[in-house]
Amino acid sequence: MSTAGQGAPEQANSLAAARGRLVLVPNTLDLGAAAQELSSVLPLAVLQWAARLQYWLVEDAKSARAFLKRVHACVPLQSPLQALSITELPRPAKGRNEPPGPASSAARGSAAAAMSSLLAPALAGHDVGLLSEAGLPAVADPGAAIVAAAHGLGLQVLPLPGPSSLLLALAASGLDGQSFAFVGYLPQDAVARCERIRELEGVSRRMRQTQIFIETPYRNAALMGALLECAAPATRLAVSVGLTLPGGWNRTATVAEWRRKTCGAADLPDLPDRLPAVFLLQA
Amino acid sequence: MSTAGQGAPEQANSLAAARGRLVLVPNTLDLGAAAQELSSVLPLAVLQWAARLQYWLVEDAKSARAFLKRVHACVPLQSPLQALSITELPRPAKGRNEPPGPASSAARGSAAAAMSSLLAPALAGHDVGLLSEAGLPAVADPGAAIVAAAHGLGLQVLPLPGPSSLLLALAASGLDGQSFAFVGYLPQDAVARCERIRELEGVSRRMRQTQIFIETPYRNAALMGALLECAAPATRLAVSVGLTLPGGWNRTATVAEWRRKTCGAADLPDLPDRLPAVFLLQA
Repeated sequence: MSTAGQGAPEQANSLAAARGRLVLVPNTLDLGAAAQELSSVLPLAVLQWAARLQYWLVEDAKSARAFLKRVHACVPLQSPLQALSITELPRPAKGRNEPPGPASSAARGSAAAAMSSLLAPALAGHDVGLLSEAGLPAVADPGAAIVAAAHGLGLQVLPLPGPSSLLLALAASGLDGQSFAFVGYLPQDAVARCERIRELEGVSRRMRQTQIFIETPYRNAALMGALLECAAPATRLAVSVGLTLPGGWNRTATVAEWRRKTCGAADLPDLPDRLPAVFLLQA
Repeated sequence: MSTAGQGAPEQANSLAAARGRLVLVPNTLDLGAAAQELSSVLPLAVLQWAARLQYWLVEDAKSARAFLKRVHACVPLQSPLQALSITELPRPAKGRNEPPGPASSAARGSAAAAMSSLLAPALAGHDVGLLSEAGLPAVADPGAAIVAAAHGLGLQVLPLPGPSSLLLALAASGLDGQSFAFVGYLPQDAVARCERIRELEGVSRRMRQTQIFIETPYRNAALMGALLECAAPATRLAVSVGLTLPGGWNRTATVAEWRRKTCGAADLPDLPDRLPAVFLLQA
């Protein structure tokens, strides 16, 4: 197996083989709100990579174009935006909360075949960028299937460094960072959600594992309410809102302390319904 | 509760309250080898933050000074290196593989009290940087206890964006990124390690969850051998070596494919004993 050069684009150019690579390009965490300078959250080399790529596979074409415009303001794009090939990934049928992809290798093979045509530019020698709407592609976001297809085709996959709200929230929480799980979304139904919260507490106790989960922003307050209602008083609960954004905040306290709203100040803010949040518990 | 301004240092200055913040500063992933430009892995704003902080709590003082010298080459330090306060965190008695910290709130309170003196500069109004030897502090690294202590004292915690080898490896793997767990290190004893590998496969199947684990570099090859010996042929196994570094590579294949060494090429490299690696499996 050949090795994947992971240096600057210039270096990578000289290493380029007959086949292109799938380059995982991190996005900001502001969901296109342009609330921050790109250089405040992304390394310069990532902006240089993004400015150079001609072929893109993206979660959402509109937000990808907005991202590339912001890149252009920092590092001029090598080709005009209109000249770039920007293709949306197939959307999962049931949104981001669907169960993991097909488990059988036959089904995986079929899905990989469907993905292969999207990777045709890489097979023809062009590096292809993969971009999601926020953070790292393929982490709590679409993209894993296309990455798996790339491996199946023997393409090199090059992940570029960038922010992950999940791990920033974990670092900021003070909860156990040596053992943790990301479990996606909790059920929307109140009874099922309460059961799931208690199940996660059980897993956290049994496996000594921090449990990390997310919610669509407009349900943040409902989830927080459910956590304060259903979780045990001694469970440590961390919330990170608007990570890397102005006005962002995070706080860790026991459920009992959250209930009393005495976590250092009496004026706990309501959870905003527009900013993404990450929730973590350790029982 | 007041909100934590997360903008540029200048903006943060104007927002600074009477108390300082605990600022989580990401490090590179090259473990001080200076194998890469800082700007290729860290956002400019992070370098600006690092250049400004006067007080540091670090995993290792020597590597912290090496990091700050590299920062200085990009963004001049506001004070000479010799004038900075750089304090090492207490080392865990049994290394990084020890079980998670004390579970009882009484024990946590005691540990937090022991940590509070380290945070005295923050209580006196100075921002304090937290830095580990690689990647994000408090994630698969020391630091969670001091972050927890900061929350206990009502200090703001500000996580700055940077690379995490765990999530870069996950993104690059094509394995399930909607549900995953980091389980730390596997046992060194061969029998116990094999049992643990099979246990992780069971968890992965039952919870449809990618399992992520690491090893000290000189044991990479031994762990890979154990995985190929103990894991089921259909289990998908991903390995990322030297993420963000020149010569870094990653590969995902089934255990059967790894065994046959036919993952797109016949010359699978031995795992280097100096580069950090991340292992992931999905059964």
